[in-house]
Amino acid sequence: MYRQMTVSSLVMDQQTNTPVVILKDPVTETHLPIWIGLLEATSIATELEKIRFPRPMTHDLLKNVLEHLNVTVERIEVCDLRDNTYYALIHLRVDDKLSSIDSRPSDAIAIALRTNAPIFVREEVLQKSQKSVSQEDKTMFRSEDKEQWEEI
Amino acid sequence: MYRQMTVSSLVMDQQTNTPVVILKDPVTETHLPIWIGLLEATSIATELEKIRFPRPMTHDLLKNVLEHLNVTVERIEVCDLRDNTYYALIHLRVDDKLSSIDSRPSDAIAIALRTNAPIFVREEVLQKSQKSVSQEDKTMFRSEDKEQWEEI
Repeated sequence: MYRQMTVSSLVMDQQTNTPVVILKDPVTETHLPIWIGLLEATSIATELEKIRFPRPMTHDLLKNVLEHLNVTVERIEVCDLRDNTYYALIHLRVDDKLSSIDSRPSDAIAIALRTNAPIFVREEVLQKSQKSVSQEDKTMFRSEDKEQWEEI
Repeated sequence: MYRQMTVSSLVMDQQTNTPVVILKDPVTETHLPIWIGLLEATSIATELEKIRFPRPMTHDLLKNVLEHLNVTVERIEVCDLRDNTYYALIHLRVDDKLSSIDSRPSDAIAIALRTNAPIFVREEVLQKSQKSVSQEDKTMFRSEDKEQWEEI
């Protein structure tokens, strides 16, 4: 089972000095934090803010390549969480053929935002994530801790 | 007219604190410096050093997408230099069809290294580059200035 989610925000984890993209299920208000690289965070942020550059950035190039080849991004899925690493799939449609390609969630999200593809997360990943967050730091996403987080 | 070149080295311009990828014509020893972003420099450096990561980085994903779609990178070309900005083309082969896609040289080089595609530079770009380098700083690439440059 998969749940459709959207990019809620992009914040900086002050403790690890690492960007975190927060996915959100608009129905249940469930949140999924994914720690990502600064480069990918920048790419997600510029797309969220609709900032345009004179030259194509790397994810723009990837989007342009897919368009050029008449390939559609059907959806992206955060499909697994193993050893503190999230895994994603980018589902592509070429003519009537569907296939998927392994990706880091950050790249998959950066592409989904540029192609208006829906973002899905596997239920199992949400359960695993909630377990690991509650084991590590139950207060992490409490609202009173918001001052620990700063919008990028 | 195009000239085939290879990646000679990746250095840090100490004055601007910007990475520079140096292309080289092995026959004439002509060099072409292209100032690039830190992210793209990292991607070029890891491929030059054959460093492998457990998960695909963004340029690895782009390479995997092309392979997955049976698309070959025939060659990349640094085709223009306008307003201090270099332009490149990635030439793709799908079945028997050739086409090209606009790219920054840094992304094109990162892809060329991963797909063993040859790197070409237009003669006109080399001429323009030599003019602009000699106007700005004739000593920039003299060997005695090597201490200004540090391998990334």
